[in-house]
Amino acid sequence: MSALLGQRRGLMLVLSSPSGAGKTTITRRILERDAQLTISVSVTTRPQRPGEIDGVHYHFIDKAEFDRRVAANQLLEHATVFGNSYGTPRGPVEATLTAGRDVVADVDWQGTQQLQQNFRDNMVSIFVLPPTLDELERRLRSRAQDSAAVVAERMAKAADEMSHWAEYDYVIVNDRLDQSVAHVATILAAERLKRERQPGLAAFVNRLREGGG
Amino acid sequence: MSALLGQRRGLMLVLSSPSGAGKTTITRRILERDAQLTISVSVTTRPQRPGEIDGVHYHFIDKAEFDRRVAANQLLEHATVFGNSYGTPRGPVEATLTAGRDVVADVDWQGTQQLQQNFRDNMVSIFVLPPTLDELERRLRSRAQDSAAVVAERMAKAADEMSHWAEYDYVIVNDRLDQSVAHVATILAAERLKRERQPGLAAFVNRLREGGG
Repeated sequence: MSALLGQRRGLMLVLSSPSGAGKTTITRRILERDAQLTISVSVTTRPQRPGEIDGVHYHFIDKAEFDRRVAANQLLEHATVFGNSYGTPRGPVEATLTAGRDVVADVDWQGTQQLQQNFRDNMVSIFVLPPTLDELERRLRSRAQDSAAVVAERMAKAADEMSHWAEYDYVIVNDRLDQSVAHVATILAAERLKRERQPGLAAFVNRLREGGG
Repeated sequence: MSALLGQRRGLMLVLSSPSGAGKTTITRRILERDAQLTISVSVTTRPQRPGEIDGVHYHFIDKAEFDRRVAANQLLEHATVFGNSYGTPRGPVEATLTAGRDVVADVDWQGTQQLQQNFRDNMVSIFVLPPTLDELERRLRSRAQDSAAVVAERMAKAADEMSHWAEYDYVIVNDRLDQSVAHVATILAAERLKRERQPGLAAFVNRLREGGG
């Protein structure tokens, strides 16, 4: 269809969930199967964890550089969580959307609210819920790098994060990972069929109505 | 997910297209593969064609009965096309939606506008376009029962019908039938994941936040 209808502007796909509900895994899996999708790599001031690659998992920067970027309006959204700052760089996202590719960002409710201000109708948001609170705690405990104190802190924050589910377009209960990934793929595919995301339609229909085919 | 979240109200799926663009075939195919979906059988005053079954393809009624139903507000929408009247019965649609099943209706732009007044956010509309005008004419000619005069009349009406594409939520160019059926299935699946279509979510999240899981 894209050949018929010309280039569309990409859409901003936002995934949020309490830490441990599966958002990061879902994001990685949907990126593997969808060639039209690019991830937005956040900047952060938090320490690099073992196994994390600078520029892949995050761009690791110090607080002075972070503050400079905020002041220069180079971040689409930013927030401070557990004493660390996170943000979404504006430049790469804008360039990707203009090139007609979609961008997925994995941010919390604060980030979502700020992105919504920037993207409005060009944004699609999905909230991922854990099936149970026990399951959420089990997933957090299974992360070797997180201490018991961090787990307790994240469980407390989960209740707060989940209170914002009603601000999202779609909600997925992440009971089975495969099904959740399929749900996100389905949402993306449907959103690309929305009238306003097919910019060549008016010209296409006019040619049809004039008999040009 | 439905087991976790309780019963939702069904949604009204509307498919429109110029005659011959494939709407009826797509509707039949999507009904075969989606057990949650029921078709709305229209009433009509037009003569029954060979092969058509009363109560399956249409409910065939006379003009006096049609007018009586309009006056009694028993039709969700109605229109007169090529001298014949068509309408969507209110009772069966309301009962199906209340039972948590989705309804698909195959109506023109006039019907869509009236259904939109009744269903608002609980309606999803898809416009099906032919890939070319030549292809539309070829499909109309291949219908043995339509005379050359009827084909010419329908081609003239197609341009008028297509002028309303911008009133629909989604647009599909019916280039390959299989792909178009898959697109409709995708749209339905995504719409069922919309936050407002999962009525048990507020209670579910409250239980999660209170630690009840």
